[in-house]
Amino acid sequence: MSPFTFVDAVASVGTLDAGAERAAIAHHDRLTKPRGALGLLETIGIRLAAIAGAMPPPVPTPAAIAVFAGDHGVLAQGVTPWPQEVTAQMVANFVAGGAAINVLSRQMGATVTVVDVGVITDLDDAHGLLRRKVRRGTADLSVEPAMTIDDVERALDVGAEVAAGLVDRGARALVTGEMGIGNSTAAAAIIAALTGRTASEVTGRGTGIDDAMLARKVAVVERALDRLGPEPDGRTALAEVGGLEIAALAGFIVGGAARRIPIMIDGVIAGAALLVAASLCPQALAFTFAGHRSTEPGATAVLEHLGQEPLLDLGMRLGEGSGACLALPILEAGARVLAEMATFDSAGVADKT
Amino acid sequence: MSPFTFVDAVASVGTLDAGAERAAIAHHDRLTKPRGALGLLETIGIRLAAIAGAMPPPVPTPAAIAVFAGDHGVLAQGVTPWPQEVTAQMVANFVAGGAAINVLSRQMGATVTVVDVGVITDLDDAHGLLRRKVRRGTADLSVEPAMTIDDVERALDVGAEVAAGLVDRGARALVTGEMGIGNSTAAAAIIAALTGRTASEVTGRGTGIDDAMLARKVAVVERALDRLGPEPDGRTALAEVGGLEIAALAGFIVGGAARRIPIMIDGVIAGAALLVAASLCPQALAFTFAGHRSTEPGATAVLEHLGQEPLLDLGMRLGEGSGACLALPILEAGARVLAEMATFDSAGVADKT
Repeated sequence: MSPFTFVDAVASVGTLDAGAERAAIAHHDRLTKPRGALGLLETIGIRLAAIAGAMPPPVPTPAAIAVFAGDHGVLAQGVTPWPQEVTAQMVANFVAGGAAINVLSRQMGATVTVVDVGVITDLDDAHGLLRRKVRRGTADLSVEPAMTIDDVERALDVGAEVAAGLVDRGARALVTGEMGIGNSTAAAAIIAALTGRTASEVTGRGTGIDDAMLARKVAVVERALDRLGPEPDGRTALAEVGGLEIAALAGFIVGGAARRIPIMIDGVIAGAALLVAASLCPQALAFTFAGHRSTEPGATAVLEHLGQEPLLDLGMRLGEGSGACLALPILEAGARVLAEMATFDSAGVADKT
Repeated sequence: MSPFTFVDAVASVGTLDAGAERAAIAHHDRLTKPRGALGLLETIGIRLAAIAGAMPPPVPTPAAIAVFAGDHGVLAQGVTPWPQEVTAQMVANFVAGGAAINVLSRQMGATVTVVDVGVITDLDDAHGLLRRKVRRGTADLSVEPAMTIDDVERALDVGAEVAAGLVDRGARALVTGEMGIGNSTAAAAIIAALTGRTASEVTGRGTGIDDAMLARKVAVVERALDRLGPEPDGRTALAEVGGLEIAALAGFIVGGAARRIPIMIDGVIAGAALLVAASLCPQALAFTFAGHRSTEPGATAVLEHLGQEPLLDLGMRLGEGSGACLALPILEAGARVLAEMATFDSAGVADKT
C-alpha cells in the first residue's frame, strides 16, 4: 500500500454536510432548554454533525494528540534563554509521561504520540515515539531559507500520514501538539507573512523572555520577513521562515480533515500551521476548532484573521498541545448534548408561550 | 445526631492553608515548563492545595451537583414567557436524566441530586430527588416580601445540610445547580441590592424575552428594590426579594466551604447566591470557583464585584449548573498537574539560563 501523502490529503478533503447541519440545528430547537441557551456548545455540536455527516454526531472520543518535535537554527541569534538540548530532553519527558501534555491527555483518555520530524540530535527508539526525521533542525531563518521546498513536502507528508494513521487506529478527534526550542520565532514570522501584520504585532515572549531579548527577536523576525517578501504561499513561507514541526502540523491538520475528523488546534505554533493549512487547502479549516487563546500576540492574530472563537482563554502559553487538550471535554459535550438530551415532547415539558 | 445547620456551617468555615499554598507555588516553579506557562491552571492548583491543606491537592473528583428547585410569585407580573408548571416538569426531566445537566454530569462522572426546596406543586418520591420543601413558592417580590426570615433560615439550612451530606457520601467537589421559572428576576434584584448596581444594569433576558417583557422585568426589579431599601444584609435581601432555591444555594456554598471542598459556581442565579453567602460568611468565598461567564448582565456584575475570573466564557445562559459542570475538567487538571508532572530534576531537563 502506498503511503498517504499530503497531496492525497488535499485531494480528499470534502465539504461540510449541509443536511446533517440542518438536522442538528432543528434538533437543538426541540431540546428541553431555551433556544440558544447552550451558546457555543450548540455551535460546536452542529459543526460536529456537519463534519461527521450524521445527526447526532458521533462522540469525538478517544482523542489522539500528536506532538511534532523539531529544532531551529535561529537559536544562533539569541532569541530564547533555553538551550537547544531541551527539545530532545522534552521529547524524552513526553515519552516517559512526565510533561503537562501527558498529564492532561491521561485525564482526557487521549493518547500522546511524539513525532521526531527534525530534532537535531539522534533519538533512540522508544514506545510512543515515531522517528520521521526530515533533517537535523532548520537553518537560521534570519539569514537564509530555513529549509528546502523538498524538506517542506516531506514534513507535510509526515503530518498527513501521522493523522491518517491515528484515525485509522481509532482516534475520533485529533489534537495538535509541538515542541521545539525557538519555534515561537518561526511561528511569528509565518503569522506575520500570512496575515500581513508586522513583526512587532505578532512576536511575543514565548517561554518568557526579557525586553532586550524580545527586541532582538522582533528584529530577527523583521529580517526574515524582508528576505521572504510579501504575500507568500504557505509552502514558500514554510521553506523560508518556518520550522519542520510547523510544516508537519500543517500536514497533520489537512490529513485529519481528509479523514473527516475534528482537529483541535492549540496555541501560537499550531496557529501558524493552521494559516499554512488554510493557504494550501482552504476547505480544511471547517474541520478545525480553536482550542484556546494563548497569551502570545500571534495566537490572537491568527484567531482574528481566520474569524475563529477559542473555546478556552486561561492565560496559557505552554504549547505541547496543552490548551487544546484541555478543551476536549467541551467538544465532547457538544456532541453528547445532541445525542442524549430529552426533547420537549419526549419529556412532557411545556414550551414557552 | 442533630442536623448540620447553616449556623453550624458558618461557624466551621476556616481559612486557606498558607503553608500548602506556598508549597504548591514553589512546586510549580520546579515543573518541566516555563514558569507561569499554564496560566490560570496554576492558580487553580495552588488554591486547591490551600483549600485541602495538602500539596499536591487531592484530585477533586467525583463531583456532586445539587439542583435546587423553587417557584416564584413574581410570575404574576409577566416577567417570563414560560409557564410556572415548567419548574416541576423540569424536575421530572432531571430525575429522568434527560436535561442538559444530566448529560454533562454523566460525561464528568458526577452525580445530580435534585432538591425541592420550594416547588409550588407536590412532587412524588423519586430516586435522586430530595423533598425539602420550605414553602410552596415565594410571594410576589414586587409587592410584598418574597418570604419570611424564618423561611430563609430553613432554606439556608437545607442547602448547608445537602452540601455536608454530599461531601460525607464522597463528593470531592460541589456544583451549584438550580431550576425555577422566574428566578432570574429574583436574582437580578439580589444582585442589584448587594452590588449597588441599578436594576437596568443587572436585569437580563433570562431564558429569552423580548424588549417589552424586559422593560416590564426591569420595572419589577426596581419596585422590589424600592421596597427593600439600600445596603441590606444577605438574609434581608433573600427574604424581601429572593427565592427559596437562591437561599438554599447560599447555604450550600457555605456548607461546602465548611467541609473544605471546592465549590464550582454556575451562572447568574448561583452568582446571586454567592453574593448572599459572601455577605453572611465572607470566608466562604475562598472555597469557590467561578465556573463560567453567563451572558446575563447580572452574572458579570457578580464576577466584577467579587473580583473573580470565570473559567469558561461560552455564551451559555441555561442555568441548572450546566456551565459550572462543564468547567469541572479544568479544576481536575489544576490538581493533576501538581500531582503528576515531572520536575526539571526528575526528568533531566535543563532549566533556562
